[in-house]
Amino acid sequence: MAADPLWETLTTICLWRSQWYNLRQDRIRLPTGEEITYTYQDHPGAVFVVPFTSDGRVVLIRQYRHPIREWLWEVPAGAVEAPETPVEAAWRELAEEIGGTANEMQLVGDFFAASSVSNLRIYVFLAADVVLDVPTNREATELIEIALFPVEEALAMARSGVIRDGQSALALLWCEPLWAHL
Amino acid sequence: MAADPLWETLTTICLWRSQWYNLRQDRIRLPTGEEITYTYQDHPGAVFVVPFTSDGRVVLIRQYRHPIREWLWEVPAGAVEAPETPVEAAWRELAEEIGGTANEMQLVGDFFAASSVSNLRIYVFLAADVVLDVPTNREATELIEIALFPVEEALAMARSGVIRDGQSALALLWCEPLWAHL
Repeated sequence: MAADPLWETLTTICLWRSQWYNLRQDRIRLPTGEEITYTYQDHPGAVFVVPFTSDGRVVLIRQYRHPIREWLWEVPAGAVEAPETPVEAAWRELAEEIGGTANEMQLVGDFFAASSVSNLRIYVFLAADVVLDVPTNREATELIEIALFPVEEALAMARSGVIRDGQSALALLWCEPLWAHL
Repeated sequence: MAADPLWETLTTICLWRSQWYNLRQDRIRLPTGEEITYTYQDHPGAVFVVPFTSDGRVVLIRQYRHPIREWLWEVPAGAVEAPETPVEAAWRELAEEIGGTANEMQLVGDFFAASSVSNLRIYVFLAADVVLDVPTNREATELIEIALFPVEEALAMARSGVIRDGQSALALLWCEPLWAHL
């Protein structure tokens, strides 16, 4: 954990624990001297992989998300499963979710998904020359449809809000300046 | 709550409750017949307000985020506090966080911040002709610096990853096609 430059963490406890994330509660002394309790999701991080094919298309998935009771357009994604690294997770999710392999997996950047209530860090990867040539390996909870869109159409979906998963939309928009060089 | 088209929610319990969000755990029957437990953050939703001034600048804030122990560039934002509506929350946060008033508050769209682990829905607003002319009203936990950036510079910060809060970055990029018409 990084040094805490401003807020002094006095104690920390885990309110709830699972294989996916924990609920962590810290007792904190603010710079004003006031003491508060802050509770947040403690998550191992996740990768979002934007898969580009050599013929100018992006592979999107349509997935059912129980917390919001909706189907969302997304890019392949999943949690980093220690001890694997983010790039290893990116290769794994590309294969498991869409049966994809790639010539290159490029780290585009990272962002925080919801920094007031979670430490969830999202690593964005661009997968180049993707081919859907290996068997998928999905869990029972992964209800996934796969569709290919021309790059410009996928970017328009990210800009217009048709892609309602914010993490996938930003991942696509961050790849926009790079795909022209593929 | 919307109807559940595919996953049958058998029972739901609240594992932890606070004024900010709850941790909800559902027992679910999948379409395969398999039963699983799914736990997620149950959040009232939040507004992210992109404040444009009449002289072509965007007001950003720099805020300390305890879950990640970092300062982030963000736009003014905060939870919707029932019974207020999202647009009411947008006006309130604009005033509270940066002392701002605006000529117009426009709903740009909404997205989900982290749909696999939270139902947190983000409403993006564009605030036009913003003036910083009222007193701020911040909580002790809101350590905020305010800075104005030319619009093109703020958009470049959102595209390049300098803005590491994903919600703020996407909110800015969604406003890009609109600000030219202000």
